[in-house]
Amino acid sequence: MQKIKLTIEYVGTDFCGWQSQPNGKSVQDEVERALGKYFDCDFVRIYAAGRTDVGVHATGQVAHFWTDKEVNPYKLCLGVNLALPQTVAVTNAEFVPDEFDARFSAIDKTYVYRAYVSPFRKPSLDVNHAQLYREVDVSAMQQAASLLVGKHDFAAFQKTGSNLKGTVRTINSFTVEKNGEEIVFTVNGNAFLYNQVRIMVGLLVEVGKGRYSLDDVADMLGGKKLQFRTMPARGLTLEKVNY
Amino acid sequence: MQKIKLTIEYVGTDFCGWQSQPNGKSVQDEVERALGKYFDCDFVRIYAAGRTDVGVHATGQVAHFWTDKEVNPYKLCLGVNLALPQTVAVTNAEFVPDEFDARFSAIDKTYVYRAYVSPFRKPSLDVNHAQLYREVDVSAMQQAASLLVGKHDFAAFQKTGSNLKGTVRTINSFTVEKNGEEIVFTVNGNAFLYNQVRIMVGLLVEVGKGRYSLDDVADMLGGKKLQFRTMPARGLTLEKVNY
Repeated sequence: MQKIKLTIEYVGTDFCGWQSQPNGKSVQDEVERALGKYFDCDFVRIYAAGRTDVGVHATGQVAHFWTDKEVNPYKLCLGVNLALPQTVAVTNAEFVPDEFDARFSAIDKTYVYRAYVSPFRKPSLDVNHAQLYREVDVSAMQQAASLLVGKHDFAAFQKTGSNLKGTVRTINSFTVEKNGEEIVFTVNGNAFLYNQVRIMVGLLVEVGKGRYSLDDVADMLGGKKLQFRTMPARGLTLEKVNY
Repeated sequence: MQKIKLTIEYVGTDFCGWQSQPNGKSVQDEVERALGKYFDCDFVRIYAAGRTDVGVHATGQVAHFWTDKEVNPYKLCLGVNLALPQTVAVTNAEFVPDEFDARFSAIDKTYVYRAYVSPFRKPSLDVNHAQLYREVDVSAMQQAASLLVGKHDFAAFQKTGSNLKGTVRTINSFTVEKNGEEIVFTVNGNAFLYNQVRIMVGLLVEVGKGRYSLDDVADMLGGKKLQFRTMPARGLTLEKVNY
């Protein structure tokens, strides 16, 4: 048996997320079925670095699977892509040692959140950007982002209703860059709570609008719940999983 | 009566192109209907800077229309966008003098053609990029692009079957830039023949692959027909119309 690591890119718009669900169209199902078609079986079970939520995209999702068939990684990518819908593709395949595990061997992950500033919709950007209607203070957002860097208890940064214990996570870096009308948030961390990235970006946007201060950011890191909008899924992309 | 200039952005993927067609879903129809809804009539006839072909995108299409209603340009954009599908939006509206004509007042237009280099599909780029399977010689492509700049007879650069007389056009600038896996072609000209941009980019790609030389480019400018693929519509975006 050989273990193979896949890098997978997808536009999440029309999927219920990465993970298989009884009544949803998931990216996992598509890839498992396409591998099945390639290897002439029903499906091939794959194990991903992590789930992505409904509507979230990926350029660097990683998954592994086992096979006892002979595999040429280059031909595998081409063949599997033919069996995948246009919105999903395998962009790399390579042999990995038995110890490799897409989830447990991951050191950290990079997510990118994209937004644009315009009072009017921008259809060319909407597929993977959120819309901000007014100018925001990028410098204040950058300062707020640096407050989030480090090892913190992110209990107040998870989806309402989550009651996960063990909410300490480490953010290695968090940058905010403005290029013209586009604002790009790039965050790297060892692991994230449910909706954590979209909630963190939402908080930064509130700071950028002047509705919350850096003190509020510190309070939220101390566990205080603040009211604001979780950013929409469509702006979020899982960019890279590092091993 | 007031004349109003609109800037229109759209993802052309699911449209038969800009222009109304008996059995197609056109961008023009959508905008005319949305204006009609806003002004409480069936539709408002609009006149565009030029047609875009099936599957071609725009971030800076321009059109004008007349109205005798009172108009607040900002509210017009917001209101019309509510009546438009997600893939089309008005990004600017302004009053213009009676002499202004979206088509005949245009001085030149800028088109951008985007491609990426990868043996495997990139779903995150496919909506507005063409795929090039192998590395190309960007420097040779840049040289070929500069040969096309200037006033030339582009008779050999129009869609097969076109028998337009008067095929002299002026290309003001034509650049080719590579950023990582992405290649961006930017061309500005006073007017273009049918499919001219996609044919010019197709020729540059052949030069980049080493299949055609700079001499071949010169021959084609001299009227010689060369065999190669017209680049797909999805990579092309009408970026700006200058007045």
